[in-house]
Order: sequence, then structure tokens, then C-alpha cells
Amino acid sequence: MSRFFSSKYKNLIPYTPGEQPKDTVYVKLNTNESPFMPSDKAIKYASEAAKKLQLYPDPECRELTEKLADTVGVKYENVLVTNGSDEILNFAFMAFCDENHPVVFPDITYGFYSVFAEINNIPYEEIPLSPDFTINVNDYIGINKNIFIANPNAPTGIALTLSEIEEIVKSNPDNVVVIDEAYVDFGNESCIPLINKYDNLLVTQTFSKSRSMAGARLGFGVGCRELINDLNTIKYSTNPYNINRMTMAAGIGILEDEACTKANCKTITENREFTAEELKKLGFEMTNSTANFVFAKHPEMDGNEIYLKLREKGILVRHFSKKEISQYNRITIGARNEMEMLVNALKEILKEN
Amino acid sequence: MSRFFSSKYKNLIPYTPGEQPKDTVYVKLNTNESPFMPSDKAIKYASEAAKKLQLYPDPECRELTEKLADTVGVKYENVLVTNGSDEILNFAFMAFCDENHPVVFPDITYGFYSVFAEINNIPYEEIPLSPDFTINVNDYIGINKNIFIANPNAPTGIALTLSEIEEIVKSNPDNVVVIDEAYVDFGNESCIPLINKYDNLLVTQTFSKSRSMAGARLGFGVGCRELINDLNTIKYSTNPYNINRMTMAAGIGILEDEACTKANCKTITENREFTAEELKKLGFEMTNSTANFVFAKHPEMDGNEIYLKLREKGILVRHFSKKEISQYNRITIGARNEMEMLVNALKEILKEN
Repeated sequence: MSRFFSSKYKNLIPYTPGEQPKDTVYVKLNTNESPFMPSDKAIKYASEAAKKLQLYPDPECRELTEKLADTVGVKYENVLVTNGSDEILNFAFMAFCDENHPVVFPDITYGFYSVFAEINNIPYEEIPLSPDFTINVNDYIGINKNIFIANPNAPTGIALTLSEIEEIVKSNPDNVVVIDEAYVDFGNESCIPLINKYDNLLVTQTFSKSRSMAGARLGFGVGCRELINDLNTIKYSTNPYNINRMTMAAGIGILEDEACTKANCKTITENREFTAEELKKLGFEMTNSTANFVFAKHPEMDGNEIYLKLREKGILVRHFSKKEISQYNRITIGARNEMEMLVNALKEILKEN
Repeated sequence: MSRFFSSKYKNLIPYTPGEQPKDTVYVKLNTNESPFMPSDKAIKYASEAAKKLQLYPDPECRELTEKLADTVGVKYENVLVTNGSDEILNFAFMAFCDENHPVVFPDITYGFYSVFAEINNIPYEEIPLSPDFTINVNDYIGINKNIFIANPNAPTGIALTLSEIEEIVKSNPDNVVVIDEAYVDFGNESCIPLINKYDNLLVTQTFSKSRSMAGARLGFGVGCRELINDLNTIKYSTNPYNINRMTMAAGIGILEDEACTKANCKTITENREFTAEELKKLGFEMTNSTANFVFAKHPEMDGNEIYLKLREKGILVRHFSKKEISQYNRITIGARNEMEMLVNALKEILKEN
């Protein structure tokens, strides 16, 4: 820390992203990336865009935003695209939360929420999950605080139903409820249609998981026009050209190929069911994940040890040291052969144990 | 504005970027873009990177950062790359300025500084330029406040000398001095070497101007290790994957082709001299710009009127409504034929006047 760093950050502990090893010796099942390349259209459009890099991108991202609005069934004015969904989440913390508008989220969820709250100096409360890792909806009914919920939740993969989400949104009409749907495309219905009914609902999604574009950095928020206007005020006061030309073009390409996205999601869902079956046979216990990962522990082996042994065998999964979940590993669903390698590695590890 | 927008932003007026028209009927001399395509290497590397978009980018941006550090003559630990230089500037406001550490900058400069100060709730003071639009160095000596100076300044294009910069940095040892060198490559020497001598100096630059990559969004900061560490804390608390794979690859490509960048800068500098000569013949008065633009007014014609008449003729330049500079237009230096078109258009406009 330099002697110039503002004291307002004295308690700030930055987010730790999953390992991104620079070599390619690992089977990478640790950051919930897609095992599939993005559609050819995305690659082609991005390459074409690279030839015009000398010109600023459209700060309004109009073409991409219109196509995206159309895809998710809302209007242009209801969508804001950002540099990954971390950016729209941070914008939401900035815009709608402050000293007088504290925020709550589950104690086990996307680890970045507490960092966003800290850096923006926003009071926050972490509501414990039930012992089975489900969110107790009643904890969020009529609490008169801003709410961030990942649905399905991370790293458990467990989802609330659409009507449970609606109950939460409806019962807190004077607070913003942010539903982070990063993992919604692997077996759940989006709550985006509810934005037409509730002016206090912001839904965020990402192109990083189901759309195979983690490397392009593209996320977005969907809400009523007024919420999106406020988020635009934050954008135009921090980084108006937040989306580069190539990412914008790739996003348009992938949206023109929704069939490819849907087919990939179907395969990943099937691979998840396969993986869950196989892990069950090996004695693993898992949450009911509807995301592109499983969250698994073994009654006879320590979670961190499993993580380390897999690493030795060239397979990366994500282990969190937080006490309540330290017996678990979050395992991304990759291609079928990757999941077979995982299962075989776990068999060996358990045998050696 | 929604009923949920935090009252802390009640006075916030976002930055207004220059027009980015979606049609291509204009000669675009309004946002200081390069008239040259980026090097073939940048295009090629970016296109290759598009094929791996399903994987997250390296959050450390190690390969790019190492190459960049090497190019500007510092160590890896002295550099942080960001999503355009707006992001590093915002990070610097966040990290080093607060209620107790106010900031000063010239009253006529990059219009975003005051927006960054506003959104981060930082007290700021704008120091008037001299009547000839130069910065009076004495106004910044030993003032014990954080300082942001664009060098050369925008939109005047006038530069301070290296020794003037050093005087300012040296005389404010307990404050951070940020030198924004967005336009340094068109005729000035960078003050980057001074970071080895002063722990309170942060230098920012961009790939948007001299490196023909405005559409890729790539900027960076250079400073002592501790300053860069603090800025990394901000990055990892807001958006760890701030640079996408394609931009990273394009950045590496352009750095492998410094000869191309240097040749482009030389041509732009020559075109600037040509343009200045021609405008002088037409009676224009100009600042001594060493940037990739000229800043010009005509004694017999209103600045806004010139802007509008040029627009009618299909040429976009940038006009600022701020009183002190409302008689001027900032005209980007493009390719020679574009500058000839500008000169001819101005001839006609003056004749019609």
C-alpha cells in the first residue's frame, strides 16, 4: 500500500478470481467457462471489427443493445450492456445503495457482492442460508432493504422459483432487488418478464457462461427505463466507451446464432446430469445444481484435499476456504470427455485415500 | 431518474462524449482518432484471440503488461493496463483522492476530470489558465493538493516542459500528481522516466490516439510499485477481468510494431503543420498545439457557426460551449486528403460569410 492510498479503503479486501493458469496442461473446470467455442458468426464479426479499431466504438452500443433487447423480449430502453456483468453489478451498488440504503444478500453467494459493498462504503448484511444451502425466501420478504440474489445461487447452483422471486420483489416495493442470472440458462426460467410489472427489479446476465464469451467481457442489466437511465448516468460518469468494437461485434454474432447457444446449453445440462450420476456412484453428495457446475463433497475425504489431488492430476476445480462450504468443491461442467477424465481421476483419488 | 437513485449523485452531470455518428457520410475530425488502421499484427492477433473467447482473459494481463513495460522503459510492477485511460483516471481519483485529499486541475482541460471528482465525491478546484491558454506552473507549486494535468493539455494542445512537470511533482511530495499523456506522442517527451525518482507521480497514456486503437479500449498507468498496487486493489474490487482477450492481443500486436506507430505519428505531425499553415493563411488564430489536433478560432466568425457550417458540409469537428473557449473549434488531424477537404470547406464557409 502506498502512503497515498485513501483511508476509506482500509478494510477493503479485493475479490480473488479463480486461477487462470497461463499454461494449458490443465483440464479447466474451475471458472465456469463454456467448453464450446463461440459461434463462427461471433468470431467472424469480431475479426471484421478488428479492422476498424482506429475508430471509437458506439458509446450507446445501439445495434448490440437492440438485438439483445429483442432476444430477451424487452425494449432498447430496458437494457444496458457492460464490460462483463461485474460492471453492471458494481453500477447497481453505486446507483441504488448508500449509507441510508443498505443491502442484504445470502452469506454464501457470489463473493464479489461484499467487495462491491465495501468499496462503495455501503452497509450490508449477509443472511445465512438454510443448513441445506437453500435460500429461505421468508428472510427476504418485506425487509425494506436493497437485495442482491444470484439465481441460481453460486456456488450452490440451487435456484428459487419465479414465484418466489416475485414475492421478494413485490414485498419490497421501495427497494431495488437485483437478480443476478449469470447461470440461468442451464435449466431455469429468467425473471426478465417481471420488469414490466415491477419498477424495482433489475436483472443481470452475462455472455460468459451460456454464450461462450468469457474472454470478450460482456454482461448486461435489464430493468424499467428509469433504472436503466440511472445506470447509464453511472456509466457516462465513469467509462462511456466501456464496450470495445470487437466485443460488441462478437455479441451481435452470438445473438444471431441463438440455436448454437441453445444446443450448447442442452449439452452442458446433459453433461451435468451425467457427472452428477457418476459422482453419486462414487459416494459424493451434491446440491441440486441447475447451473453449469456441480457442488460436491465426499463424506470420507476433505474438500481441500480433493482439490489438491485433482490439481496434481491436472484437473482444476474451485475450492472455497469459507468454513461452511470448505468440504465442497465447485466443478464446472465441461465437455463429455473432460467430465469422464474428472470421474476417472476422482475414482483413483478415492482408491488411494 | 428513478426514485431509487442515490441522492449522493444529485449534482452529477455525466461526461458527454464527442458525436459518434452511425452513418459514414462524415469526415470525422471530432474525437482525435487516428486516420490510420492499426498495424496488421494487431488485427491478426485480435482475430486469433477471438477463437478462444470461451475462456476468461488473464486478469493480470501479464504478457501485454510486460511488453508495454519494456516499451516504455519500466518494470512490470510499474504498469497497470485498463479499459481505456478513462478507467485508470477514475481509479486514480478513487484511490488517492477523498474528502481530506482534494484535487486541482486547470479550468480548461479534459472535461472528465470534474465528472470523476463529482462521482467520487471529491472536493476539487479548477485553476484558471492564463489568458493565452497556457498553464501557469506557479499555480501548482507546493500547493499540497492532488493534481491532474493533461500534458499536452486538452483541448488547447499546449504542453508543459519536462522540467516544469518535475517542479510540480517535486514541490508536492505528499500529494499524488497525475500527468495524463494521452497526446504525448505527437511532439513531446513523456515524463515516465521520472517515476523512478518520485513516488508521487502517476503517468497515464492511451492506445486510442498514436496507436490507432480507440475502438479496442486500452489505456494504462505508470508509477512506482506502491501506487500501482493501490490501483490494482481498486481494479480487483470493481472489475478484475477489465481487459478482454482481443484487446489484449491487439495491444501486444501493436507493441510489436512500434515502427508503424512512429511512422503514423510522424505523418500526423506533418499533417498538423500543413493544416496550421493553411488555416493561418485563412486568418485563423491557433494555440501552439503539439497534439493530434489544432485548436483554432477565426476573428470574423463565431466558433459554433463554423462548427455548424462544417457539419453541413459533412465535416465533424469538436466545439465546446464553455464560454472561454466557445470561439474555438478543436480539429483532429486526419489523413492529408481529409485536411485538404477541411481547408477547402473552410475557404467556402469564409467566402459565404
